[in-house]
Amino acid sequence: MIYIGSSLSINIGYKKEEVSKMSKHDFNDLSGKKPIFLLTIGNTETGKIEGITAAGEEPELTDLTPPADAEFLYYDKCRSIEGVPITPDGIPTPAVLSKASLNLIETQFLALDAGSNVKAKAPTIDLGGSPGKDIRKPIAVEKTEEILKNAQLIGRELSTDDGFLMLGESIAGGTTTAYGVLKALGYDTKVSSSLPQNPIDLKEKVVQKGLKNSDIEEGELKNEATKAIKMMGDPVLAALTGLTIGFKGDVVLAGGTQMGAVAALLKEKDALDSVCISTTKWILDDNSSNLRELTSEIGINLINSSISFKDTDFDGLRVYEDGLVKEGVGAGGLLNYAEEKVGKNRLLDEIEETYESLRKK
Amino acid sequence: MIYIGSSLSINIGYKKEEVSKMSKHDFNDLSGKKPIFLLTIGNTETGKIEGITAAGEEPELTDLTPPADAEFLYYDKCRSIEGVPITPDGIPTPAVLSKASLNLIETQFLALDAGSNVKAKAPTIDLGGSPGKDIRKPIAVEKTEEILKNAQLIGRELSTDDGFLMLGESIAGGTTTAYGVLKALGYDTKVSSSLPQNPIDLKEKVVQKGLKNSDIEEGELKNEATKAIKMMGDPVLAALTGLTIGFKGDVVLAGGTQMGAVAALLKEKDALDSVCISTTKWILDDNSSNLRELTSEIGINLINSSISFKDTDFDGLRVYEDGLVKEGVGAGGLLNYAEEKVGKNRLLDEIEETYESLRKK
Repeated sequence: MIYIGSSLSINIGYKKEEVSKMSKHDFNDLSGKKPIFLLTIGNTETGKIEGITAAGEEPELTDLTPPADAEFLYYDKCRSIEGVPITPDGIPTPAVLSKASLNLIETQFLALDAGSNVKAKAPTIDLGGSPGKDIRKPIAVEKTEEILKNAQLIGRELSTDDGFLMLGESIAGGTTTAYGVLKALGYDTKVSSSLPQNPIDLKEKVVQKGLKNSDIEEGELKNEATKAIKMMGDPVLAALTGLTIGFKGDVVLAGGTQMGAVAALLKEKDALDSVCISTTKWILDDNSSNLRELTSEIGINLINSSISFKDTDFDGLRVYEDGLVKEGVGAGGLLNYAEEKVGKNRLLDEIEETYESLRKK
Repeated sequence: MIYIGSSLSINIGYKKEEVSKMSKHDFNDLSGKKPIFLLTIGNTETGKIEGITAAGEEPELTDLTPPADAEFLYYDKCRSIEGVPITPDGIPTPAVLSKASLNLIETQFLALDAGSNVKAKAPTIDLGGSPGKDIRKPIAVEKTEEILKNAQLIGRELSTDDGFLMLGESIAGGTTTAYGVLKALGYDTKVSSSLPQNPIDLKEKVVQKGLKNSDIEEGELKNEATKAIKMMGDPVLAALTGLTIGFKGDVVLAGGTQMGAVAALLKEKDALDSVCISTTKWILDDNSSNLRELTSEIGINLINSSISFKDTDFDGLRVYEDGLVKEGVGAGGLLNYAEEKVGKNRLLDEIEETYESLRKK
């Protein structure tokens, strides 16, 4: 565990405005180790259910967003699409924030494919998976064991005493599958969303249907993490779990609810040592999700970036303050680490420059 | 450049027995940095020309050896074939030596695919290439630019202050394509072989035909490295060149003649800084190849492992002393580095154990 002092006690009953006063991030325990940032992309048919995800409003977006995010991190521009992934509301992908962070820090970086419909036009590591099925089908992730094994291998082979692992994801519909997995494992949880009005009722219906069609009760898979992924999850959850298990050293799960699900899976696999979650301020500000309670219940440390766009001139960034798009592509971890390394002002400048250069293209 | 003192002056006119007295290896300049070992696999139709390569005597062997080598390094066992790749003469792949070395050192490891006929049953990074054509055809490596770019990207993204890059290869027919590239660049060179009687005449004929059919004279591509790869090379040469260019830091090319060709390509691209070649004792003992003269002419340092099997009980290892199979799969670099880290005796024990466990399977 990476401890941040007494922050866990501060967390109970916190008020929204207190978020800014909490110990935001603590990479100090990582003693100067360098990050190895891995972005895992994938798809789940669940992301195409109408009304489930912002990307889902345009099905092509669910397919093209993950590879485009990977390409943006590698090349500073996407190759599978023009511009960058943007929600129908006009919010640019958090890959913009992640890329800006990567520009300022020293890290190894690779993209991995756990099962995407459209392959990235960039060199990725194929984890031998395939796109996930709608979780209302009996089996959602056919190649769960294969992905877990391959991811574990990669995690192991990238291990080094001088580095810690930071994991990000890009998969549309991933909060619904995360919710499904958490329910199967028995957690009483709420999940965030990329839509203005969190489609809680719809997600609840989808997950309940999924549990029923897989013939499992809530909490029935409490001791069967692999099966929980297989029945109710997505390929990316399998990959993130495997990578963490394989890596010998500290792991920072960079994300929100989806990383909460990974933590729950790791707990069942008794692999939660030296793992923490780092997310964005916007995730914690979201009243319709309860990540802090979830991580507290699981017993994993949660740290967060303090980056806020309330003072930016750019509408496309300030809209993050509305909490529509809140996380993704490892933003919660990369922003946090970059801020610690170079300071908030420099990071904000870089984000604005990165965003501005997109608008000029 | 990684210097090993006055070894270059010792090299002129060296006698075979002097090899054992030279400064064998010098990773001291790498100041405690950890290796990042990348194995690049691929194929070239040139490897199927009858009589060109030991693997070529069984065409399936040319296709299956590279992926099997990658699998052996990842899993301790191959998945594409039973046992391990063995020449018709009964000599086990140098992947056995490389794997033993990997077992004893701390390194990150990944396999990359530059263009193989049979994909490895293991997670590799796809460099967007395709198998190389017979070099007697006008164009040998159609996707040269793509492979160079992708490899450069990976080299860059894996860069870290704490590490140095070590590159190995597995491709049948690679010494012939290396010879072709060197001739196109204007080097007067001899090359080694995996066959008992180095088929020099045949290689010469193939390369001359290749130059003619690509409409180039010897040395005509002296200033056109990319074209030299395209006309006379193979996908793996493109990958190794790109990886080295992209990596920010020291690079050890772990191999023999093929790495000599990579060095020549890097020189043309003005990218030879902080690069050296580390090969096996058997390569330097081979009178039919002149790697020392070549590296001296190029201006790149050549170091070597001193590992010898003259005292082993295992025939399948002692046969390496006959100089039939001499190098490959990064053996020349991994043996060298492992020996420096853990000592010769421990390394020899590990190699024998690895080999013996194969025989039991």
